Amino acid sequence: MTKTIVVMGTMDTKGLELAYLAQQVSLGGCHPLLMDVGAQAASDTDADITAAQVAAVIGEDIDTIRALPRGEAVEKMVAAASVYLKKMVQSGEAHGVIGVGGSGGTTICAAAMRALPYGVPKFMVSTLASGNTRWHVDIADIIMIPSLLDIGGLNPMLEMVLNNAAQGIAGMVKGHYAYQASGKKVISMTMYGTTTPGVSRARQVVDDAGFETWVFHASGVGGRTMEELMSMGRIHAVMDMTLAEVGAHLVGGLHDAGPLRLEMAAQLGLPQVIVPGAADTIVLPPRDQVPEKFKNRTLNFHNPTMTTMRTSGEENVAIAEFIANKLNQAKGPVVVVLPLGGLSSIDRPDKIFYDPEANGALFETLKKKLSSGIELIEDEHHLDDPEFAIRVGQKMVSLLNR
Amino acid sequence: MTKTIVVMGTMDTKGLELAYLAQQVSLGGCHPLLMDVGAQAASDTDADITAAQVAAVIGEDIDTIRALPRGEAVEKMVAAASVYLKKMVQSGEAHGVIGVGGSGGTTICAAAMRALPYGVPKFMVSTLASGNTRWHVDIADIIMIPSLLDIGGLNPMLEMVLNNAAQGIAGMVKGHYAYQASGKKVISMTMYGTTTPGVSRARQVVDDAGFETWVFHASGVGGRTMEELMSMGRIHAVMDMTLAEVGAHLVGGLHDAGPLRLEMAAQLGLPQVIVPGAADTIVLPPRDQVPEKFKNRTLNFHNPTMTTMRTSGEENVAIAEFIANKLNQAKGPVVVVLPLGGLSSIDRPDKIFYDPEANGALFETLKKKLSSGIELIEDEHHLDDPEFAIRVGQKMVSLLNR
Repeated sequence: MTKTIVVMGTMDTKGLELAYLAQQVSLGGCHPLLMDVGAQAASDTDADITAAQVAAVIGEDIDTIRALPRGEAVEKMVAAASVYLKKMVQSGEAHGVIGVGGSGGTTICAAAMRALPYGVPKFMVSTLASGNTRWHVDIADIIMIPSLLDIGGLNPMLEMVLNNAAQGIAGMVKGHYAYQASGKKVISMTMYGTTTPGVSRARQVVDDAGFETWVFHASGVGGRTMEELMSMGRIHAVMDMTLAEVGAHLVGGLHDAGPLRLEMAAQLGLPQVIVPGAADTIVLPPRDQVPEKFKNRTLNFHNPTMTTMRTSGEENVAIAEFIANKLNQAKGPVVVVLPLGGLSSIDRPDKIFYDPEANGALFETLKKKLSSGIELIEDEHHLDDPEFAIRVGQKMVSLLNR
Repeated sequence: MTKTIVVMGTMDTKGLELAYLAQQVSLGGCHPLLMDVGAQAASDTDADITAAQVAAVIGEDIDTIRALPRGEAVEKMVAAASVYLKKMVQSGEAHGVIGVGGSGGTTICAAAMRALPYGVPKFMVSTLASGNTRWHVDIADIIMIPSLLDIGGLNPMLEMVLNNAAQGIAGMVKGHYAYQASGKKVISMTMYGTTTPGVSRARQVVDDAGFETWVFHASGVGGRTMEELMSMGRIHAVMDMTLAEVGAHLVGGLHDAGPLRLEMAAQLGLPQVIVPGAADTIVLPPRDQVPEKFKNRTLNFHNPTMTTMRTSGEENVAIAEFIANKLNQAKGPVVVVLPLGGLSSIDRPDKIFYDPEANGALFETLKKKLSSGIELIEDEHHLDDPEFAIRVGQKMVSLLNR
């Protein structure tokens, strides 16, 4: 059966470019459906799904929408397009979606795509693919494609870009297979480069015991994606060993997962083994873009695109309070394991983040604030030591086999 | 002929995941070549192109590289991988590349991919696809794919993500066609949503005169991409009507194109028609993330992902000085046209950015600082008025037909 791909955008200004894209999708062996999400004016190009049809799915009239102030009109079109797209995917009428836009079009198309399930191919050809994509992608699996040129007129260069995108989505849709759960219990974990040895070793223990592990990069987006998958019922237990996202939220940093981190598992009552790994670390921008206020702190130039900052004792008190506050509300069993020997690969006696006093503040605050219903284990080893990691893994297995 | 795709990453930690990705590329009908760019340790998985072979292409020994401090080792591997990849693409041995990585792997793979020509399919499956991708993508056409999970262990969810990516790059490589110049002279332009009517109308004039237009979003990345394409000889004249990137550089803002904007065309002696469009505008992050220091300024909530700020008279003096300084060094003919009626769609008597005094500072400074060799035209119209745009387009045509 030929697969169908929705080709979406604001056709009042980008009708010709979208029609070209649809034609190339067709050459790629898929059936394109042109969908107009223009919130401002009618299109000269014919849409397969008109803006009026999109609006109607939420009971709105397109002329009424277009008479609204711009921001409100955009909001209505986003709401309508989200519902329309989701219905098409759920009913099997569409198997993927590709959008095209500048700042307005990207905002509309990406918001609608965020309503679709993980795995459904979603491409966004955008002038804003190189920059902060978090405002558009958030925790979705939207694939941003740099358009190089603005979507303003067809020419051989833009046609090359659009054809590439069309062939990419066609290939992805044709070769896609949906996620199939293995039937094993899934344990989620968090990791950094600096906690990789410990996390990997603990993972091995639970894998060997017959469980399935999903590891997330504690990038802010990663932790939030993990908690979203928990809320969808895809995750059955938590072995959270890299909590740097808490510091990023409280102190500032790129890997902020927001104020709700650690709440979902607690609320769902999932069994949790928690290690405050990488609580020594706040991730900042590249060396030359570190905010002024952090310039006198202990900084580690991790790589050309990432600088890390050592947390202070005072910050660690706040981080520990945040962690304890969330875990104390857990409806399921929680075990906290403290790696007294160190929190990350650069928190060791001869390394740049070594600061036993700051770690002490973290550990003491956790000991003081965690409720008595939570099992607290103090272990002399470093998080990355095999002895520590194996103990954490075994603890997880015993919680699950209880 | 079966097309070949390089599957690259740090195989010491991600060997299994890369091998799975290569297998799926093969199912997608392309020939995968596994390339190890691990700067730290040897891989358990067999590479088709070993790290030792990669290093050797720049005369380096892999064991010597691995004995270096991490940052230096990474730099050497990036240099070697760039040369290796470029050679493979130029000789026709490879037709696309897909990489996989967390922060380290993304940094290495993306840097190597940036050495490849525009159009060659380049996918980067990364834990950092949702966030500031400019540090990795820059002005290249690298397509960032959110990995959802970390690249740490295979499981059905990550396999779904990797298969999607593999089928996408396979489709793109199989259906790719290379850029073919039309033979027409290419004129580059810059645009914002708020300069679209004027830019589109001016474009029409030069299109109708038989020229080809390439429009770029003045997003910082867009202006720099345009100047990169000039340096490659792909652009023959410039009708630059949206200079907001200058203010972003001087005042601060998302659309900073750096200190070199406006230099390339001047240096190459390309004919230029310059309009200081959108010099009234600085693009800032979403409403709730506007930097403290700008909170009391005139702000326009353009859309949920973008706030714009009105430039002041003082800032406009600095912007005008920057523009004059660059244009005064031009080796080719330059015409500057001032839209005395307004700089953007929201710089009109009844709109939020209307500020004749601030505009006056811009215009007066340009008149004072531009050298006498530059033709300066004052036009009473607004930039978006057809009369103005047509005049700009005709000026460009007459420069080219001189």
